[in-house]
Amino acid sequence: MKLSDFPQEVQDEVATTRKIVCDLHQELINWGLVMWTAGNVSQRLKSADLFVIKPSGVMYSELTPESMVVCDLDGNLIDGTRKPSSDTASHAYVYRNMPDVYGVTHTHSTYATAWAARGEEIPCVLTMMGDEFGGPIPIGPFALIGDDSIGKGIVDTLQDSKSPAVLMQNHGPFTIGKDAEASVKAAALTEEVARTVHIARQGAIYSKVLHPTKHKDLIKIPQEMIDSLNDRYTNVYGQ
Amino acid sequence: MKLSDFPQEVQDEVATTRKIVCDLHQELINWGLVMWTAGNVSQRLKSADLFVIKPSGVMYSELTPESMVVCDLDGNLIDGTRKPSSDTASHAYVYRNMPDVYGVTHTHSTYATAWAARGEEIPCVLTMMGDEFGGPIPIGPFALIGDDSIGKGIVDTLQDSKSPAVLMQNHGPFTIGKDAEASVKAAALTEEVARTVHIARQGAIYSKVLHPTKHKDLIKIPQEMIDSLNDRYTNVYGQ
Amino acid sequence: MKLSDFPQEVQDEVATTRKIVCDLHQELINWGLVMWTAGNVSQRLKSADLFVIKPSGVMYSELTPESMVVCDLDGNLIDGTRKPSSDTASHAYVYRNMPDVYGVTHTHSTYATAWAARGEEIPCVLTMMGDEFGGPIPIGPFALIGDDSIGKGIVDTLQDSKSPAVLMQNHGPFTIGKDAEASVKAAALTEEVARTVHIARQGAIYSKVLHPTKHKDLIKIPQEMIDSLNDRYTNVYGQ
Amino acid sequence: MKLSDFPQEVQDEVATTRKIVCDLHQELINWGLVMWTAGNVSQRLKSADLFVIKPSGVMYSELTPESMVVCDLDGNLIDGTRKPSSDTASHAYVYRNMPDVYGVTHTHSTYATAWAARGEEIPCVLTMMGDEFGGPIPIGPFALIGDDSIGKGIVDTLQDSKSPAVLMQNHGPFTIGKDAEASVKAAALTEEVARTVHIARQGAIYSKVLHPTKHKDLIKIPQEMIDSLNDRYTNVYGQ
Repeated sequence: MKLSDFPQEVQDEVATTRKIVCDLHQELINWGLVMWTAGNVSQRLKSADLFVIKPSGVMYSELTPESMVVCDLDGNLIDGTRKPSSDTASHAYVYRNMPDVYGVTHTHSTYATAWAARGEEIPCVLTMMGDEFGGPIPIGPFALIGDDSIGKGIVDTLQDSKSPAVLMQNHGPFTIGKDAEASVKAAALTEEVARTVHIARQGAIYSKVLHPTKHKDLIKIPQEMIDSLNDRYTNVYGQ
Repeated sequence: MKLSDFPQEVQDEVATTRKIVCDLHQELINWGLVMWTAGNVSQRLKSADLFVIKPSGVMYSELTPESMVVCDLDGNLIDGTRKPSSDTASHAYVYRNMPDVYGVTHTHSTYATAWAARGEEIPCVLTMMGDEFGGPIPIGPFALIGDDSIGKGIVDTLQDSKSPAVLMQNHGPFTIGKDAEASVKAAALTEEVARTVHIARQGAIYSKVLHPTKHKDLIKIPQEMIDSLNDRYTNVYGQ
Repeated sequence: MKLSDFPQEVQDEVATTRKIVCDLHQELINWGLVMWTAGNVSQRLKSADLFVIKPSGVMYSELTPESMVVCDLDGNLIDGTRKPSSDTASHAYVYRNMPDVYGVTHTHSTYATAWAARGEEIPCVLTMMGDEFGGPIPIGPFALIGDDSIGKGIVDTLQDSKSPAVLMQNHGPFTIGKDAEASVKAAALTEEVARTVHIARQGAIYSKVLHPTKHKDLIKIPQEMIDSLNDRYTNVYGQ
Repeated sequence: MKLSDFPQEVQDEVATTRKIVCDLHQELINWGLVMWTAGNVSQRLKSADLFVIKPSGVMYSELTPESMVVCDLDGNLIDGTRKPSSDTASHAYVYRNMPDVYGVTHTHSTYATAWAARGEEIPCVLTMMGDEFGGPIPIGPFALIGDDSIGKGIVDTLQDSKSPAVLMQNHGPFTIGKDAEASVKAAALTEEVARTVHIARQGAIYSKVLHPTKHKDLIKIPQEMIDSLNDRYTNVYGQ
């Protein structure tokens, strides 16, 4: 099936979505989340079982709305002059299995990937983590690219979690949202909390090793306070 | 009471202040102090008991002077087409209780927030800290958003301190000043000294663990020298 | 022999290559890989035994295609108004001894150089490392500038390795590729993995020292999975 | 004595130098060496015992050639509409006591200042350090602003050293050169080597604590090789 076989409404939403997804890739650069051609963002359509994603291995400075690729929910190419991102199958698996998700972002952002290399979840010790993630950022399984393993690992980890982010072991973060922008925001905040909590922990080594009587470790936030933060943020924050 | 009910002088100061506060938000981006929509700056007016603050959850690239929100000192919306920042109640509490303060800034800047996650004050080991802060940067209590707890924590911590910055536990820095620009400057310097002292301490772990006979720890600055630095900086520096 | 003595085809390729090599130097700045005048990129011609390289000690903001220098494979100046890069002899040695290499990049990028200062190879614990490097990034010998020692160290280390990058001890990374762009990409990814693995290791110190029962160290990726990643990336990724 | 009392030749050199010094302040921003209004660059004239320096406490975005201040070698204001930098007395002391120095730069750059907070010199373990510094970067004494203490500390430390940089204890780096550009270059490279050696050392903690049988510490460069690097760089590198 070709894009021209779809109703005009779908073709119009594809055009709008190509622009949105292209612009959001620039946010990955703006916030320092990607190197060279790594990373990708997609958004699912409301009007058809299709999604728009980045082409594979293209420099960010060369991305245009027209270069964005349209795939169906099995990851088949529907429209576009380029090969879709090599992570397309993982995005498609998420959309097939999480019907409320309309945006997916993947990066290898530095600090988040460092936690992933140890397979260690990020503990919730910041109010901004309570706001956005509602608890720790969990680890997903080690999985190779090429089949549904990565997609399945994302879905298995996130479907019972408040967190919109999973750190795939040895690989990097995948984030989800109600649209592509929400998933990119989650990717930006994932890196920020990965970095802040890393630095907070490293600072605790100093007093432990040099001044043990004045030792200061991370201070946990009680779960009911995390729930309160997450509830307010989800229901009150923003316009 | 609506803004049009205020004297022309007040309406003019609101217009000027909206431009100042909008431009200062760009400084938060320029100096790397905020991610996505986090962070906010406000300035109190001289001509009325009002202040101008950022709208809630709006991207920095979309901020304009017109989008800035005007509130009274109880945090009630007086003018603006958007909802005020979710930290508005905390800014309002500071203005009500610290009559010399005309500017407040809040960020989640990375290194300052990392100290806050441990509830550990930043010791004064740099001459630039003596200049700007006159001693350590103190920790404020853990407090949830939604009432006056954060505002009260800021005021209780800062009212007897030379420091214009407080690190609210698990949350991040709030800074005050004689105007919004002074509070943004304090926010920028808070992050810089948080980062520099963190790195200085981490470097001390190396020699302690690997070369204990050549160990070098942070060197304290005597309080009378800190006082001398702070006095000169407050009274002589600048134009 | 002067450039004007070469066939028109060669002169045309020189002009094209000067533009390519000049633009790629800007990528070194964009990705934060170089300070001041440090670092250099070269590309070998297809039509003659010549290569194009950066002039010595010139600021990046002053580089133009015309300022790029043309040398033969012994490093002799063939065309250009400036002295060639002080690393020209090393680039020339690589081209003489690795006939499939048409691009070489050298930087002192921070994290890669930090591994080089310890003479410690970077272990392959990230899927993106498996993709691009196919295993660890190896260390080359200590060698002084001024003769073929650096070039020989690069070639001896890389000729039996899948990695396009070598960290020369106490010095910094050299990377190779099928053209200059591939070598610059390898330089950018070398710094990114050097940084990510460094941070991942530092995070492991925290739990070892403070919470040994919950200790999380780097998780190794089995070599057959690294081979699978590297094979797919080399043969399937991109357009 | 006013600037208009000096010969035309001097007035012309002042105009040229104001432009040079203003532009070099932008390099401090470009390379991330300064925050807010911190940091300053000066250049001594060839035609008279005068130097040009930044005004005190002015934002970098507001600096113009005209705003640069002219002082004599005792630090007295000769020309300019603004107060000179609060570090003017230190620059003046250096020019009076080191007749070959025509450029001085001062920053609080993060990593260099972190070494200064411990009073620990930076060991020479990188070939780029051998090139530019010819050995370790030394520590100067703790000194308060307001008299000649800082200037004397700089001169006492640097006059018998190959290094163009000194880290003043608890304060930050001062660098010197044959002109302002050389001193700014030394400031940029001081921060880069401070950062790289810091990271190299931190990486050595990991193997010491977690994998002591595979421990890798910094590898020293023999002094005769450092001398060889420094000699070549000083006499051969560049155009």
